Amino acid sequence: MSEPVKVEVGLGERAYDILIGPGLLARAGAEIAARLPGARVAVVTDENVAAAQLPALQAGLEASGVASTAITVPPGEKTKSFSHLETVVDGILAAKLERRDVVVALGGGVVGDLTGFAAGIARRGMPFVQIPTSLLAQVDSSVGGKTGINSPRGKNLVGVFHQPRLVLADTETLDTLPAREFRAGYAEVAKYGLIDRPDFFYWLEKNWQAVFSGGAARIEAIAQSCRAKADVVARDEFETGDRALLNLGHTFGHALEAAVQYDGARLVHGEGVAIGMALAHRFSTRMNLASPDDAARVEAHLKAVGLPWRLSDVPGGLPDAEALLGFIAQDKKVSRGTLTFILTHGVGRSFIAKDVPASEVLSFLRENHPG
Amino acid sequence: MSEPVKVEVGLGERAYDILIGPGLLARAGAEIAARLPGARVAVVTDENVAAAQLPALQAGLEASGVASTAITVPPGEKTKSFSHLETVVDGILAAKLERRDVVVALGGGVVGDLTGFAAGIARRGMPFVQIPTSLLAQVDSSVGGKTGINSPRGKNLVGVFHQPRLVLADTETLDTLPAREFRAGYAEVAKYGLIDRPDFFYWLEKNWQAVFSGGAARIEAIAQSCRAKADVVARDEFETGDRALLNLGHTFGHALEAAVQYDGARLVHGEGVAIGMALAHRFSTRMNLASPDDAARVEAHLKAVGLPWRLSDVPGGLPDAEALLGFIAQDKKVSRGTLTFILTHGVGRSFIAKDVPASEVLSFLRENHPG
Repeated sequence: MSEPVKVEVGLGERAYDILIGPGLLARAGAEIAARLPGARVAVVTDENVAAAQLPALQAGLEASGVASTAITVPPGEKTKSFSHLETVVDGILAAKLERRDVVVALGGGVVGDLTGFAAGIARRGMPFVQIPTSLLAQVDSSVGGKTGINSPRGKNLVGVFHQPRLVLADTETLDTLPAREFRAGYAEVAKYGLIDRPDFFYWLEKNWQAVFSGGAARIEAIAQSCRAKADVVARDEFETGDRALLNLGHTFGHALEAAVQYDGARLVHGEGVAIGMALAHRFSTRMNLASPDDAARVEAHLKAVGLPWRLSDVPGGLPDAEALLGFIAQDKKVSRGTLTFILTHGVGRSFIAKDVPASEVLSFLRENHPG
Repeated sequence: MSEPVKVEVGLGERAYDILIGPGLLARAGAEIAARLPGARVAVVTDENVAAAQLPALQAGLEASGVASTAITVPPGEKTKSFSHLETVVDGILAAKLERRDVVVALGGGVVGDLTGFAAGIARRGMPFVQIPTSLLAQVDSSVGGKTGINSPRGKNLVGVFHQPRLVLADTETLDTLPAREFRAGYAEVAKYGLIDRPDFFYWLEKNWQAVFSGGAARIEAIAQSCRAKADVVARDEFETGDRALLNLGHTFGHALEAAVQYDGARLVHGEGVAIGMALAHRFSTRMNLASPDDAARVEAHLKAVGLPWRLSDVPGGLPDAEALLGFIAQDKKVSRGTLTFILTHGVGRSFIAKDVPASEVLSFLRENHPG
């Protein structure tokens, strides 16, 4: 088996490696034992991932003599709640894990966010290893240490920054993903090109079919994405500045997710981000910040890969422009009552725009609203 | 009004001041506004403290134009639960506080631990100010950034390290404390002398009555305690080494608290620590580590101030020695199955003793058991 690609996340004493490639579930025990000798493991996963991937991981741990226990939660966004957080923390403590043992997240973004939060608060912080099994989790939520749950007041409003000790992105786990889920994760891959890596975006325009097919191009796209995110996170671990760039497409996207009441049958996160990125580029042209050609190029690529890119692509209709603005204003990236957006001067030239007039956003939403 | 005593906690970019003296509730608005200009405030307190101290704090905030909202929880250790954590976090978010606003804990250790945890996870970490209103909270839980709640598996097993931006120890709030509660807090004051400041312990032997009476000696004792704790915390913020010294008396003490099922009518935390400190010194003499004279001196001082110091001082009887050892072994300071204690070579000469044989502890408990 070929060696995995390694991406280093440079966070000083919290630095860690991301390993990317096939067969990493089988190597998990060896990689964990090498970094955390003698540690016992609690694996947190959801029912679906448990059925598909847990036996391979358990075999991989056992092969290196790493003792483990499994904690299984229901799949889906509703699992990011105080109630499931309490369940996972209690499972870790019930297994009598100590502060030098390890909590492993095996699953997508929901499992990663919930488990990282539980690891961050059990015994005031335990070592944490991410084994992301969705494309979205491999390129986004497993890098950067953001963990958390949702609140009735909004998504991801409760959590901690807790960096993993190791991320194992086993690309074989992506082979069984539903096509829609893989495609939604791809929106975040494209995002890294649009933020500040234009050459990566142009590469994706040419190679996206190979990325979707698997193999070397997919590993390369995941590694590039992790490098891009790691660079931003290393500059701004606690999101006091540049890290906000990672929210490109997310202010519009979160509002759309809220508008469909987080109904994944209508819109999943990556799809909201895809529409949000297209809107951010189109809004930037309206503000005379970017060329319409760039907005059209982004829209064309999202359309080509089969992602939604405009408001009318959300099935089942949307509330009116005023209501959408209301969802945007509730977004946590509102600072002192003003609206902050990630806008762009063109492909790969995004920036943080503070004090964006709500009236401009409202007019823009009206012009682009299908209803 | 005289200027408060200032103790600086040197934690680099997380450094903060502890102000100690009378009249600080009235100055809270000015002190907060000076450090966090423009911030809004959520004050978390319990029903008892709200009645006694909240109006003075609210007046102090209003006087400096600091907008505030209050979140009130029930008094008592049971409030350190996931359920109340969720309530407090929701109250912070419902007040639409943003990441630069401030969460203030007004109360004793329970309110401080719960509120600090809520501040540490709401929006992945918000600024936090401690206004401790018990002696225990002023000298212990308000210094060092440990926050948390209890689990059915044990006390303080869930939480985060989240340093306050400021601690205001208003010594006037201690004037209305019940005598028993003040005395229990005094056990932690004496602890700092016993850990590594023998001169402070000798000073307390001479001046404890003045400390109990209030005034300059009380302020001095609180300031010395905060300095002592701050020194240890600055050396070891995340408890990977020396910080464990602060657990002097706590391994026995926690076991006793657990043995009476945390029934505060029988034993409050500081009383458990007092007995625990006496036992740690007596056990150290049994292990030929310290002179019996030192153990007797510690016992005499605790007895003089009216604190319990031996197992027979716990009203209502205790489970047998084997059961007590069981409570000790469940304590979180157990590492890889071995017992870790803070033992001592004499007054002010404590150290971390790893691999203490459980059999010795059991024999010691049998010899000292009243039953």
